[in-house]
Amino acid sequence: MSHNSIMHEFDLIKQCFTNWPQQHNDVAVGIGDDCLLWMGTTPLVVSADTAVSGRHFPEFASPEQVAQRVFLPAISDLAAMGAKPAFFTLALTLPKRFNDDWVIAFAKRLQQLSVQTQCMLAGGDTTQGEQLTITLSVHGTCAHPLLRSGANVGDDVWVTGWLGQAAAALPAVLSRQENTVPNAWRQAYWQPQPPLKFAEQLVGIVHSAMDISDGLAGDAQHLAKASQVDLALNLNSLPLDEPLRALGEEGVRHAVAGGDDYQLLFTADSSVQREILALANTENVNVTKIGSVQAGSGSVKWYDNQQLIDLPWQSFQHF
Amino acid sequence: MSHNSIMHEFDLIKQCFTNWPQQHNDVAVGIGDDCLLWMGTTPLVVSADTAVSGRHFPEFASPEQVAQRVFLPAISDLAAMGAKPAFFTLALTLPKRFNDDWVIAFAKRLQQLSVQTQCMLAGGDTTQGEQLTITLSVHGTCAHPLLRSGANVGDDVWVTGWLGQAAAALPAVLSRQENTVPNAWRQAYWQPQPPLKFAEQLVGIVHSAMDISDGLAGDAQHLAKASQVDLALNLNSLPLDEPLRALGEEGVRHAVAGGDDYQLLFTADSSVQREILALANTENVNVTKIGSVQAGSGSVKWYDNQQLIDLPWQSFQHF
Repeated sequence: MSHNSIMHEFDLIKQCFTNWPQQHNDVAVGIGDDCLLWMGTTPLVVSADTAVSGRHFPEFASPEQVAQRVFLPAISDLAAMGAKPAFFTLALTLPKRFNDDWVIAFAKRLQQLSVQTQCMLAGGDTTQGEQLTITLSVHGTCAHPLLRSGANVGDDVWVTGWLGQAAAALPAVLSRQENTVPNAWRQAYWQPQPPLKFAEQLVGIVHSAMDISDGLAGDAQHLAKASQVDLALNLNSLPLDEPLRALGEEGVRHAVAGGDDYQLLFTADSSVQREILALANTENVNVTKIGSVQAGSGSVKWYDNQQLIDLPWQSFQHF
Repeated sequence: MSHNSIMHEFDLIKQCFTNWPQQHNDVAVGIGDDCLLWMGTTPLVVSADTAVSGRHFPEFASPEQVAQRVFLPAISDLAAMGAKPAFFTLALTLPKRFNDDWVIAFAKRLQQLSVQTQCMLAGGDTTQGEQLTITLSVHGTCAHPLLRSGANVGDDVWVTGWLGQAAAALPAVLSRQENTVPNAWRQAYWQPQPPLKFAEQLVGIVHSAMDISDGLAGDAQHLAKASQVDLALNLNSLPLDEPLRALGEEGVRHAVAGGDDYQLLFTADSSVQREILALANTENVNVTKIGSVQAGSGSVKWYDNQQLIDLPWQSFQHF
């Protein structure tokens, strides 16, 4: 690479990724020094998420779609803690063939998402590599974060949203026949909507939470283990939209074992059911009670019409 | 990838990257939830650094060498702020061909470095990709971080260490003829030693600081611009070791424009010279006064035997 093109690239990156409108009062120094400086005093939650082209999104994804598929799943980890987004760093590894237009479009969409979620871009690193690879480190604030380990015996088990849509969309997305599936499925894949505002307000009301990005079955197991309880979940209660329900067993499999559901699994005392429903209503979030927490040592028990069953599906793997 | 190998890999990663000895009192939740939880109340500095195989280290680097080339430059950004390392997240993108032994050796060396620098591994993400790509997000604490923007007119300009060694070693490293260069050069390349403890103690004594990982010439420019001053630097004062000095102009070029010097550039009032020298002595760090800060608007002026000269070299680019 010539010196000129290095300088050009440096200028382009600087132009695209500095002076974004979204700022944060507690970020005293952002991009431009050796480190960013965070002056906040509330507890901070942090998550690092990597998305690799051809694995976490198809190679043909547009720059805007890439921005969405990278940023929104990362933000989902903040929602899972009930945290309020604060700032993030962007580590962008770009192949040589990516041109200026790609970078400009990617940055523009990422900036929109930053503004929408009030999450400031405060640092990062741009490098060249053979494969588009993006790591976001997202930081959020929360006085009393929701942990996986807080579930109590007797709690109700809840999920947000409609399950399995993104997984159901995936074959059509990969074969570039998106128009064969419902719009809601495509949206769930390309533009997941983690219930951030709803999650923030669950703090103090619910006992435990996590996101179910790797699929309900596997993630429920993680919550059960972390809390040292069993979860009894009802297949019949899962929130499946009409088109997914019409697929029969395949639809249920997407909901249970599919991935990319950037929704919440949470547990709460039954006394707060009304409060949860009212919040969900205000925030326009779908919530569904799918089971209960029982004494145990970290298992998930699945029921189909009150019958204990063996679940034949494994958890999600990225293509 | 079969389900079994996914599970195997998951277990391997879990085994290698959890339960490390280095912990931090203010990390209330580490690996295992959706986010890590930081409960500290002192200001936090954060830096994200990506290293790509074949660019930031040669493809033939051993797993231990990769760990060093990834971790130590990242830690250098904390030193540049005068911060105390606290915790980091690891985003590891591994090609399929990397075997268990590689992961185990990499993790082992990274763990040693984590213990040595008291920087806890608190979260991360492991993904598969075509090219080994590693992003660390390092977090450190500092009540009053050293910024690039604090230089005052009249300050002395200092650097730590011996400049240009890593750059001078690079051709021999890449052609696998390391034994043709001095051991200190090889060490500077493979195992840089950012002056962490020294830097922490500069807080309250010096006015500005940064690391010079991209080469003194370019980085001095960044400090001058951030502080809106000029830096007058003397070529003759630069700390070159004997073998580098023996190279003549090429040696000077490595010191001025070479990269990978994970050393500090800092400015301080001349009244604290004694204090700086005493600290350097205690911490066994080489420090050299290389110039002074003048009124100006962000330029670096180079002098050779009191003669203002035009510097013919550009800043460092990764191979």
